[in-house]
Amino acid sequence: MKKLMNAPEQYTDDMLRGIYAAHPDCVKDTAGDLRCYCSAKKKPGKVAIITGGGTGHLPLFLGYVGRGMLDGCGVGGVFQSPSAEQIFNVTKEVEAGAGVLYLYGNYTGDIMNFDMAAEMCELEDIPTRSIVGADDVLSSQSVENRRGVAGIFFLYKCAGAAADQMKSLDEVLAVAQKAKDRTRTVGFALSPCIIPEVGKPNFELQNGEMAMGMGIHGEPGIWTGPLKTANELAKESLEALLGDLPVPQGGQVALLVNGLGATSQEELYILSGAVSALLGEKGIGIHRTFVGEYATSMEMAGASVSLLHLDEELKALLDAPAHTPFYTQI
Amino acid sequence: MKKLMNAPEQYTDDMLRGIYAAHPDCVKDTAGDLRCYCSAKKKPGKVAIITGGGTGHLPLFLGYVGRGMLDGCGVGGVFQSPSAEQIFNVTKEVEAGAGVLYLYGNYTGDIMNFDMAAEMCELEDIPTRSIVGADDVLSSQSVENRRGVAGIFFLYKCAGAAADQMKSLDEVLAVAQKAKDRTRTVGFALSPCIIPEVGKPNFELQNGEMAMGMGIHGEPGIWTGPLKTANELAKESLEALLGDLPVPQGGQVALLVNGLGATSQEELYILSGAVSALLGEKGIGIHRTFVGEYATSMEMAGASVSLLHLDEELKALLDAPAHTPFYTQI
Repeated sequence: MKKLMNAPEQYTDDMLRGIYAAHPDCVKDTAGDLRCYCSAKKKPGKVAIITGGGTGHLPLFLGYVGRGMLDGCGVGGVFQSPSAEQIFNVTKEVEAGAGVLYLYGNYTGDIMNFDMAAEMCELEDIPTRSIVGADDVLSSQSVENRRGVAGIFFLYKCAGAAADQMKSLDEVLAVAQKAKDRTRTVGFALSPCIIPEVGKPNFELQNGEMAMGMGIHGEPGIWTGPLKTANELAKESLEALLGDLPVPQGGQVALLVNGLGATSQEELYILSGAVSALLGEKGIGIHRTFVGEYATSMEMAGASVSLLHLDEELKALLDAPAHTPFYTQI
Repeated sequence: MKKLMNAPEQYTDDMLRGIYAAHPDCVKDTAGDLRCYCSAKKKPGKVAIITGGGTGHLPLFLGYVGRGMLDGCGVGGVFQSPSAEQIFNVTKEVEAGAGVLYLYGNYTGDIMNFDMAAEMCELEDIPTRSIVGADDVLSSQSVENRRGVAGIFFLYKCAGAAADQMKSLDEVLAVAQKAKDRTRTVGFALSPCIIPEVGKPNFELQNGEMAMGMGIHGEPGIWTGPLKTANELAKESLEALLGDLPVPQGGQVALLVNGLGATSQEELYILSGAVSALLGEKGIGIHRTFVGEYATSMEMAGASVSLLHLDEELKALLDAPAHTPFYTQI
């Protein structure tokens, strides 16, 4: 294991100290707990959106806390859920009188702890709603059982813009639900990553091998085999995406080509170019293309492709400005 | 070699196709050559700033072409220089009547081709000035012989802002020179990268080994040995930086912690937190911290630390807004 760190058990908190030191105008901790991560700015009367999840996926999850996106994040250890108490402490700090949307990924531990936090909120008369990202098409046939991966960025962006426009809690939830219903992701891994406290790779791939559909924690995919070309992967990914979420000719999408960590930006653009060309052949318009690291697994190599099937409402929300320490859109 | 690509010989052009497809409002090619990379917008009467260099360092070099930064970039193959003709074609497309600054890294092939392009400009009465980034402290005792690495971002940002404020060619050059004189970088590698057309790692490091001072193409460093902790690396890097460019107590710097490709953002923040703490102990203020991938070597693991010793002029230029497909600052 070669990582820039001091000790495995300090990994998450040392990272958080670095983030707070780098961006003191944007973010702060609360309740004396580094892992209770909050926007430094509060907009009275705005619905607060709170996410949470394990460390190791930057810019997920905390990286989207900022103007026009999220208000707070419960930060777990590497690949671990934040506690219900941490989520509740973040909630108390950032809620601004209009209720709270919990928006996070579809993982058992996170669901349990967010649900417990929601119960704690109920006792204090803070209204909450919850929705989980579950965009990973190849993780399950059933939508309810799918993992949440990079496509949650679209949910953050659209729901965050709606909240920033002072929509009500149920309106913000409806936007998140619509973005969820119209977002799909396909991902594939080329190499594993190493959890600092474990010290060895979380799965194995041979030379020249890849795993289609593998999850961001190394969850099994649908096939493991020889590495395909970017054009082949673009074709296979789009078939899975559009097979699950048909987009008519003349329809418009947002495209997100996300790197899992070690894959270079050069390669991500080679892949996004291939996906763009195929969408063009199908007569599907791309309103906006996002390429880069949006949801990673530390130093895992690989990528994911997400589509959001746009309508006029989602297009306007996606285009609204946003500013966080990890993501700025003008 | 595991890369998302179609064929090694298509790597650079496939990447460029992807970038143009993703960002059609921002950038375009010219002269029928994908590698002649230009801003899609021209501001009459503004000094044009042009850079260039090999593929494999995204967001360097082309990633900084956009509003408030650069106007064009000659794009070479992986780790290769663009041709003089390509640089000249970019120049003809983006020059806007106020002359052209060539601002690029201190590499022999690049210098030769930019100098030839400048001669071609002279024949067409386009005034040019040239300056090379040479910030890599550990690459040579003599400043003239140092390589240009991630610190060139500060030169782009400050000179780009000065040009955007409609300063004259010599004024923009003076800003770039001042930023150069006050910028230093120290870098270290934890793993090699693979040039697509070569197919094997460009150097070797054993398990648990790192190379301090190694260049972004694998040029030799000052020592190879066991991986140090983030705190130790922060201390050693700062000693080299401040030993070469003393910053007085009460002075202010911009800090850039840059990932070379495969190193996770989590690790970069662990490192930047350690550097921040040490600067605080020395009574040196950090005006702005930049953490992320600014100059990479594809999938190389490692990082660099750059400091820009600020004065009031550079601070204002650094804080000016900028917007490119790879970098947005508000």
